Amino acid sequence: MAYFPDIPKVVFEGPKSKNPFAFKHYNPDEVIEGKTMREHFRFGAAYWHVMRNGLADPFGGGTAVTPWDDQSDSVDNAKKRADVFFEFLEKIDIDYYCFHDRDIAPELNDFAKSTAALNQVVEHLGGLQKATGKKLLWGTACLFSHPRYSQGAGTSPDARVFAYGAAQVKAAMDATHALGGEGYTFWGGREGYATLLNTDMKRELDHLATLLHMAVAHKKKIGFTGQFYIEPKPREPSTHQYDSDSAACLNFLRQYDLLEHFKLNIETNHATLAGHTMEHELTVAMDAGALGSIDANQGDELLGWDTDQFPSDLYGTTKVMLKLLEMGGFTTGGLNFDAKRRRESHEPVDLFHAHIGGMDAFARGLKTAAAIREDGRIADFVKSRYSSWDSGIGQQIESGAMDFDQLTDWVLRNPEPVIASGRQELMENILNELL
Amino acid sequence: MAYFPDIPKVVFEGPKSKNPFAFKHYNPDEVIEGKTMREHFRFGAAYWHVMRNGLADPFGGGTAVTPWDDQSDSVDNAKKRADVFFEFLEKIDIDYYCFHDRDIAPELNDFAKSTAALNQVVEHLGGLQKATGKKLLWGTACLFSHPRYSQGAGTSPDARVFAYGAAQVKAAMDATHALGGEGYTFWGGREGYATLLNTDMKRELDHLATLLHMAVAHKKKIGFTGQFYIEPKPREPSTHQYDSDSAACLNFLRQYDLLEHFKLNIETNHATLAGHTMEHELTVAMDAGALGSIDANQGDELLGWDTDQFPSDLYGTTKVMLKLLEMGGFTTGGLNFDAKRRRESHEPVDLFHAHIGGMDAFARGLKTAAAIREDGRIADFVKSRYSSWDSGIGQQIESGAMDFDQLTDWVLRNPEPVIASGRQELMENILNELL
Amino acid sequence: MAYFPDIPKVVFEGPKSKNPFAFKHYNPDEVIEGKTMREHFRFGAAYWHVMRNGLADPFGGGTAVTPWDDQSDSVDNAKKRADVFFEFLEKIDIDYYCFHDRDIAPELNDFAKSTAALNQVVEHLGGLQKATGKKLLWGTACLFSHPRYSQGAGTSPDARVFAYGAAQVKAAMDATHALGGEGYTFWGGREGYATLLNTDMKRELDHLATLLHMAVAHKKKIGFTGQFYIEPKPREPSTHQYDSDSAACLNFLRQYDLLEHFKLNIETNHATLAGHTMEHELTVAMDAGALGSIDANQGDELLGWDTDQFPSDLYGTTKVMLKLLEMGGFTTGGLNFDAKRRRESHEPVDLFHAHIGGMDAFARGLKTAAAIREDGRIADFVKSRYSSWDSGIGQQIESGAMDFDQLTDWVLRNPEPVIASGRQELMENILNELL
Amino acid sequence: MAYFPDIPKVVFEGPKSKNPFAFKHYNPDEVIEGKTMREHFRFGAAYWHVMRNGLADPFGGGTAVTPWDDQSDSVDNAKKRADVFFEFLEKIDIDYYCFHDRDIAPELNDFAKSTAALNQVVEHLGGLQKATGKKLLWGTACLFSHPRYSQGAGTSPDARVFAYGAAQVKAAMDATHALGGEGYTFWGGREGYATLLNTDMKRELDHLATLLHMAVAHKKKIGFTGQFYIEPKPREPSTHQYDSDSAACLNFLRQYDLLEHFKLNIETNHATLAGHTMEHELTVAMDAGALGSIDANQGDELLGWDTDQFPSDLYGTTKVMLKLLEMGGFTTGGLNFDAKRRRESHEPVDLFHAHIGGMDAFARGLKTAAAIREDGRIADFVKSRYSSWDSGIGQQIESGAMDFDQLTDWVLRNPEPVIASGRQELMENILNELL
Repeated sequence: MAYFPDIPKVVFEGPKSKNPFAFKHYNPDEVIEGKTMREHFRFGAAYWHVMRNGLADPFGGGTAVTPWDDQSDSVDNAKKRADVFFEFLEKIDIDYYCFHDRDIAPELNDFAKSTAALNQVVEHLGGLQKATGKKLLWGTACLFSHPRYSQGAGTSPDARVFAYGAAQVKAAMDATHALGGEGYTFWGGREGYATLLNTDMKRELDHLATLLHMAVAHKKKIGFTGQFYIEPKPREPSTHQYDSDSAACLNFLRQYDLLEHFKLNIETNHATLAGHTMEHELTVAMDAGALGSIDANQGDELLGWDTDQFPSDLYGTTKVMLKLLEMGGFTTGGLNFDAKRRRESHEPVDLFHAHIGGMDAFARGLKTAAAIREDGRIADFVKSRYSSWDSGIGQQIESGAMDFDQLTDWVLRNPEPVIASGRQELMENILNELL
Repeated sequence: MAYFPDIPKVVFEGPKSKNPFAFKHYNPDEVIEGKTMREHFRFGAAYWHVMRNGLADPFGGGTAVTPWDDQSDSVDNAKKRADVFFEFLEKIDIDYYCFHDRDIAPELNDFAKSTAALNQVVEHLGGLQKATGKKLLWGTACLFSHPRYSQGAGTSPDARVFAYGAAQVKAAMDATHALGGEGYTFWGGREGYATLLNTDMKRELDHLATLLHMAVAHKKKIGFTGQFYIEPKPREPSTHQYDSDSAACLNFLRQYDLLEHFKLNIETNHATLAGHTMEHELTVAMDAGALGSIDANQGDELLGWDTDQFPSDLYGTTKVMLKLLEMGGFTTGGLNFDAKRRRESHEPVDLFHAHIGGMDAFARGLKTAAAIREDGRIADFVKSRYSSWDSGIGQQIESGAMDFDQLTDWVLRNPEPVIASGRQELMENILNELL
Repeated sequence: MAYFPDIPKVVFEGPKSKNPFAFKHYNPDEVIEGKTMREHFRFGAAYWHVMRNGLADPFGGGTAVTPWDDQSDSVDNAKKRADVFFEFLEKIDIDYYCFHDRDIAPELNDFAKSTAALNQVVEHLGGLQKATGKKLLWGTACLFSHPRYSQGAGTSPDARVFAYGAAQVKAAMDATHALGGEGYTFWGGREGYATLLNTDMKRELDHLATLLHMAVAHKKKIGFTGQFYIEPKPREPSTHQYDSDSAACLNFLRQYDLLEHFKLNIETNHATLAGHTMEHELTVAMDAGALGSIDANQGDELLGWDTDQFPSDLYGTTKVMLKLLEMGGFTTGGLNFDAKRRRESHEPVDLFHAHIGGMDAFARGLKTAAAIREDGRIADFVKSRYSSWDSGIGQQIESGAMDFDQLTDWVLRNPEPVIASGRQELMENILNELL
Repeated sequence: MAYFPDIPKVVFEGPKSKNPFAFKHYNPDEVIEGKTMREHFRFGAAYWHVMRNGLADPFGGGTAVTPWDDQSDSVDNAKKRADVFFEFLEKIDIDYYCFHDRDIAPELNDFAKSTAALNQVVEHLGGLQKATGKKLLWGTACLFSHPRYSQGAGTSPDARVFAYGAAQVKAAMDATHALGGEGYTFWGGREGYATLLNTDMKRELDHLATLLHMAVAHKKKIGFTGQFYIEPKPREPSTHQYDSDSAACLNFLRQYDLLEHFKLNIETNHATLAGHTMEHELTVAMDAGALGSIDANQGDELLGWDTDQFPSDLYGTTKVMLKLLEMGGFTTGGLNFDAKRRRESHEPVDLFHAHIGGMDAFARGLKTAAAIREDGRIADFVKSRYSSWDSGIGQQIESGAMDFDQLTDWVLRNPEPVIASGRQELMENILNELL
């Protein structure tokens, strides 16, 4: 272990520490609501952002300093990156990771060769997992970077591309299974369209459902027991992405009889790009029994694209943790940092600052969420706000006993209802009090 | 008929006319693809915008000049407005109209009185319909303006408000039925929330579904055969509206077993506020067999709210008409101008300019759409773009005969697919050629 | 004083208090960086939001409960509102207020009568100021609500409207002067346009400059020594507002030789609607020596209009206070709560929750900003980041000693520059540490 | 010339032609308002988009098929690209082009070598210009792609980077001068910041002004008589770009005494990203005497970034041409297609479809604009709308003869003004009539 020679293993030192390489709030063993912080969060690091994101943007090339990387497509280089990554996981004390097939191993423009390379790297990763105890949160196939996928994979107008994508998903699922992955994610990177003038949306969505049904069958065939996730995202990279938000995903899954096989992997920046808050998207998924995992990051709401910033907003982390506590926590899922450093933060050390900040932000979010639940004032207010439904006319309506004519009679016999304030400002004050 | 004394009945004069009160393109009797323009469009006028929109905005009061209106809550005033409205329909040659209960008749803060007033006005409207041949496209209940509904109607935290809303829907459905309405629309004006801190989303949505099931039962009970519509809209007036876009509506309808009873009434400005194009929203609805009716207007995409401008963009009207022709046209639905004049266009004559412009814009949209279909180049390109699905591996996939292992074999035996250009720019050139 | 009978005078009780009517952080007499909190903030309440905002929105009427208000246009009613407002100021412990002419006194559709009413109310307000020690932060004229201003005031296409607006500004300036106002604000509520198709922008802006030059002359004439402010805002209510952001205001003021006479009154929600952060807008103004006063509120960046929410985001208040401390604090300006309760928070008590929350949020922002300055890590980093400009080639460039040829020579003689990380994530971590 | 063997020279064939490689509306020699179309438009092609844009996006690599390009950094490859480009200019009949130094010649990570390569390519381009008669509309230096500029060039925190940028601008200006360029553009690609936490905005802007003053001095020194342009753009790639819109640029130029030396080069997609219409930005520049040149493209207003699509919207091209005709046309400037094909339109032939579409869209825009001017109804309405300023009280105000007291007297002696409708809908109808 020598790739980050000047950086110590990051440990909890408490809020007064000025050590930039210490946690101020993330105390992995601290117990909150019956579980350790480590168990609550199940933090994951994203292989693509940590090891493969050169920090290019549409106006300039990569800036990231990666002295360990010879920039070649060799399997040796891929293995070396894996070694660096596991050193990073060790030092930053993150237990899980996530990958795309083509960021752990090279795309060699030949399916047999690419798959062979993938299998070699997977074997190497298996060794690293065994040596360190780190685990795979989920794997996925990159069906959006290569030019063959420029018009979609499962929704490509070209059936040969669909076939190629299916083969790639199979290999990535097999790899995930081999590494004991707890889940497998489908992000429809190019599943959408640029213009309806040249697009047959219905046919494309039928094909996408076919791909997912094949995946369900393959899962059964190989005995993979991990959870399948769909990851909603609007606008990018396709002008219109089919899986634009939680509701669009659920509608698709219901329409094609797939809902029992999939949960959602929800990302903050994708939520806000869709015009929703993260807590809205989480709630929509939870209420459908379909909240699976979380891609932890945040966006810049004044910008119109996926900035994938590290989560630092304590309001955001608090609201996520409130929802997670309400749900009873993750089963297979976790908090995967699908986040990248700013392009100007190009030194390896910035990877540590970024993840430490994100982990501490979630630790404070968890503490604040637990404090809100213990305080009880907000929950009590919500309970009382809906109390008219717990008896009388409300209870009768909920029980299904009333029809329009009966309700009209009731209205004629009762005075005009006077509703009570929603008290949003007071709720916000209490939240600030407990932050 | 004397409320618009200086304005003649608007008739078609052709593209060279400089008469601002003539149609240049809308020729009601012109036949296109086997139907007259009148039959294609089934234009409707919105009672609320034509008669009740004072053109106030959040920064200033109404500017609209309405010399016929004494501003009172009397039934006589309401009837007089109805007379003016029907004179308008006659002069502008629009066959259908749509209403909210509370814009045709006064809200009197007493359910019995309000309903009695409604019934009186409905009788008057019935007479006007009979006298003129005008018809009701759809009716609806206004469950969002009165303070009692400030926290929702079907999703109110207060069961008494739900009851009131249900009674109001019943009365509005009865009125719609009495007037031979071809549909009834549910726009969830306040069905949403301002902050999740004080909201139980699951319980609220359960209640909303209960309300809609009651409406289905009532429809059957009274023998109303019109079509039910849900109208998607995001962001406004609730910070989060539950029915935020077509996919959200369909997901809700599927979840609560309501899809067979409802279609969607889709509005351009609501689509763009949700981050989608109008043609996207129409296609999503069509592909689910649930495109019912259209609220014709347009927004200003540089602004962040529902500007409800009259449709004047010929690209927009062309794309709507392409979809309608593809679907085979409306059955119960129509093109209802849910659009208002700008606040600065406060004179009665501006109502005519606005509707004439909207009707002519749709007439040109229809002609362009028909020309695109006759020309065939765009359809031919789309057909060829997906042709790999019509035979060989594509056909095998579509037929359900392939699994991941077979597709992997196929990929290993075949060369890397080289995809063809999507030709978006050429498609756009052809569209401009035919505009 | 009995309009808020159940609400005690709000006092500081410290962070552990659960009393919703106590300050947890705003301790008026606590000294930070040499000044009391009271002196730092110079909090103001907005007469229009506290007393005249019925909480209507474009989809529904007012919900606010105001038992003291008979809804009439009488001067007596206006005086009674003023009494209520001063009781509010006393109980909430806010020292300043701001008004529009037409929210303190009625618009009577007759200039002489409206002005007479204004003067009566002003006299009454003068008495209340004397009795309580409360002070006027700034006054302004409402040149946007009445239909006559629907197409602008200073930029109206109708010269008669300009004249009316000028007369109204004169009366409002006289009123402000009479009440010892420390400033006078120009918010160009309708100074903009709906479409360029009907607009002569150049002529309109010339007229606006003429109005402001007249105001400068009148100020001198009457001996008013308060500060003039321009308030930037984009998009609303005009489709395009001329004073869209700080830069647009400064460009206008420079072009028309008005910069020495005006500073800016900057509002958070207006900044974000313009696509800028509040701290950006403050910095632009500060760097031009033109930061005058602040309208304290916040927006919802997922919505596209001015939501005017009470400031509760501690990141926002911290960043504002960092800038204010950097500038050395207000001179004539203050923090005016240009914020309204949500429409659902319609009870009088919500006014207290909302203002208490805003004041506490700024108190925490001030403490955090002071802690950041005392900590010094962020400032030290910034200093070191620019240190290449303090000597050598940087100093030579700053001193004006270099030209392109000399710099080319220098580049040819020196190695490729290797830049250091911008450390955004670390900066954000430090900010969170100190929050 | 053999790089586009199957594509004929594009010529005008008229609106009925179905030849995808013919102009349907752009007839270069057709005279409108006294000038040929060729003279009106002065079309330019962007070297970067035509030759160097591989069509990568943040989610995938390049797709563009460029068989002539060996992907090397050699000068020979650069010269070959230039040959291909000039064949393109010939076949598409575009007279002008624009370049960045680093897209015509390689960045070799060594200033002397890069400059030597640049000079070799410039000589080659000079030969191609002489052989074909094509001309350089403007040149510029790329100060945003290389990692050294990741934190800005003129506004870099590192003085060495400023020096490098200055040297690069000098070389690019010299190259532009050598090629007879009619202008030189400054687009501040990274002149802005990612977070104010690490930024000294004032010092950065002082440095930027220093750079521009150096450029003015160098221009004089070498006798370059072309026009300098600043190109406004918000949001991208820096989170905040200093030159965010026309007003921000003008404010900066005024503040630093640079306005006489610079005009603006305005781009449609940058305008809309800033929340303005293109015609707004053009008018702001025109009214300051500072409209220089235009980057012709269009954005997708439902997306939040610079999509740089080819201009196809006829409303957009009509409004641009209305402004240009109003100004009297370009002097040094032109319509440079700063536009790229969609990533899916990756075949060389798509370059032709895209530019043909853009040129035809502007030809129709010019014809429509000329028709609107000849028709006169819109201009007449605007004239009458402001007619109250041409005599009486309006004329007195404009002449500077009135003060607030006099206007108050006038208001007291005159009736309440009743304003006329702004007739936006009628104006839009007339525009549609003439489209």
